[in-house]
Amino acid sequence: AEVRVAILTVSDTVAMGGGPDRRAVSVINSSSEKLGGARVVATAVVPDNVVKIQNILRRWSDIEQMDLIVTLGGTGFTPRDLTPEATKPLIEKETPGLLYVMMQESLKVTPFAMLSRSAAGIRGSTLIINMPGNPNAVAECMGALLPALKHGLKQIRGDKKEKHPRHV
Amino acid sequence: AEVRVAILTVSDTVAMGGGPDRRAVSVINSSSEKLGGARVVATAVVPDNVVKIQNILRRWSDIEQMDLIVTLGGTGFTPRDLTPEATKPLIEKETPGLLYVMMQESLKVTPFAMLSRSAAGIRGSTLIINMPGNPNAVAECMGALLPALKHGLKQIRGDKKEKHPRHV
Amino acid sequence: AEVRVAILTVSDTVAMGGGPDRRAVSVINSSSEKLGGARVVATAVVPDNVVKIQNILRRWSDIEQMDLIVTLGGTGFTPRDLTPEATKPLIEKETPGLLYVMMQESLKVTPFAMLSRSAAGIRGSTLIINMPGNPNAVAECMGALLPALKHGLKQIRGDKKEKHPRHV
Ligand code: NA
Repeated sequence: AEVRVAILTVSDTVAMGGGPDRRAVSVINSSSEKLGGARVVATAVVPDNVVKIQNILRRWSDIEQMDLIVTLGGTGFTPRDLTPEATKPLIEKETPGLLYVMMQESLKVTPFAMLSRSAAGIRGSTLIINMPGNPNAVAECMGALLPALKHGLKQIRGDKKEKHPRHV
Repeated sequence: AEVRVAILTVSDTVAMGGGPDRRAVSVINSSSEKLGGARVVATAVVPDNVVKIQNILRRWSDIEQMDLIVTLGGTGFTPRDLTPEATKPLIEKETPGLLYVMMQESLKVTPFAMLSRSAAGIRGSTLIINMPGNPNAVAECMGALLPALKHGLKQIRGDKKEKHPRHV
Repeated sequence: AEVRVAILTVSDTVAMGGGPDRRAVSVINSSSEKLGGARVVATAVVPDNVVKIQNILRRWSDIEQMDLIVTLGGTGFTPRDLTPEATKPLIEKETPGLLYVMMQESLKVTPFAMLSRSAAGIRGSTLIINMPGNPNAVAECMGALLPALKHGLKQIRGDKKEKHPRHV
């Protein structure tokens, strides 16, 4: 794959016996071309635990050097929702525009989108994006990101020809 | 009250002899049902002083365990505006979507809304939201939050039936 | 000038021999009246280096007490884009509403705007705003800010009559 994607499902419930979110894998793989040849090459499920979330985010970014990590779930207001708190300390460069467009598009579908506390940013050469665990959220969020995500991912790799699609 | 609300007015002027913002109390209480039975159970006025703001925010969240604290004022660009700087260190979990919808709605009323520097987030089981001191701002901001705030407040309490109104 | 503006171009390429961004100077000066008498009184070009960016931001804010510093470039996703990371530690009071309206307006022009990672905020009596290096970005971003920027700049100076254009 040109663009290696990993999907981390964060959920106490799912971790007790379910599998990773097939919908997310399907959304990513069906947008493969628009993402510059993306393919989901790893999935995992962890409970709502900061250390466990961070361990896998570190491994996938620092060692396995994924291009994109999408986390699913743990972005809400309940006491056990702490995916953003696990993610933010690992982010080296925040990407607030990605959060803006995900929020903008999600709010068109439901006002409950305002309860998403997602974080997003770059760690080394890996883009990490939190998305809600709702099965529809991935498609909505990816839809918001697709028009520019391919360019963003190429910029992260330092591809010179993608340096300035519009000189950002 | 099902949902206990406290309102903190931050203002050098008001603190010198005025009272809390009656408009805010009225807005909250008139939305009581939509907020799951909200009632303003405490109000206070403090000057633009970080320590004084933080002392009362800590007491209302850690000891009195309010469900919602709304601060009024001190969110602008003047040298004495420091409510967000007093609030942010006390926040454990940021809630950026609430800021997004308040900004989105406020900008429909006036471009001066872009000068609000409001912060918002969860501390323990208390949601803290900064709002501008403008008498109209509370109604505008609450209007933006109402479609999802009740669910958010129930999620903070850990109510299982509200865990995933849409699986955020 | 009533409002003293400095423009910092951040670019490895430009720093090797080009000049500051004339388009930005032109945009600011042509909006002079709407900005309360703004004039660009300093420009500089630095490479994508955190220390060099911070040195000039400190000098322009702490010593030369500029009213407004606009940085151009270094806000994207490439490894050398680090203008926001250089800017954020120097900001004392974040101004998220400015970022919101710049993002909102820029997205109307191009979806690549979501790749801007701009920061903005107040240091002492100086407002610092990151903008993308794209020659069109300054006009778009300034267009978004113009309806309230003059008031914001006066608030920063502590002008009492501008304390509450709308009691933010
Ligand atoms: Na918007």
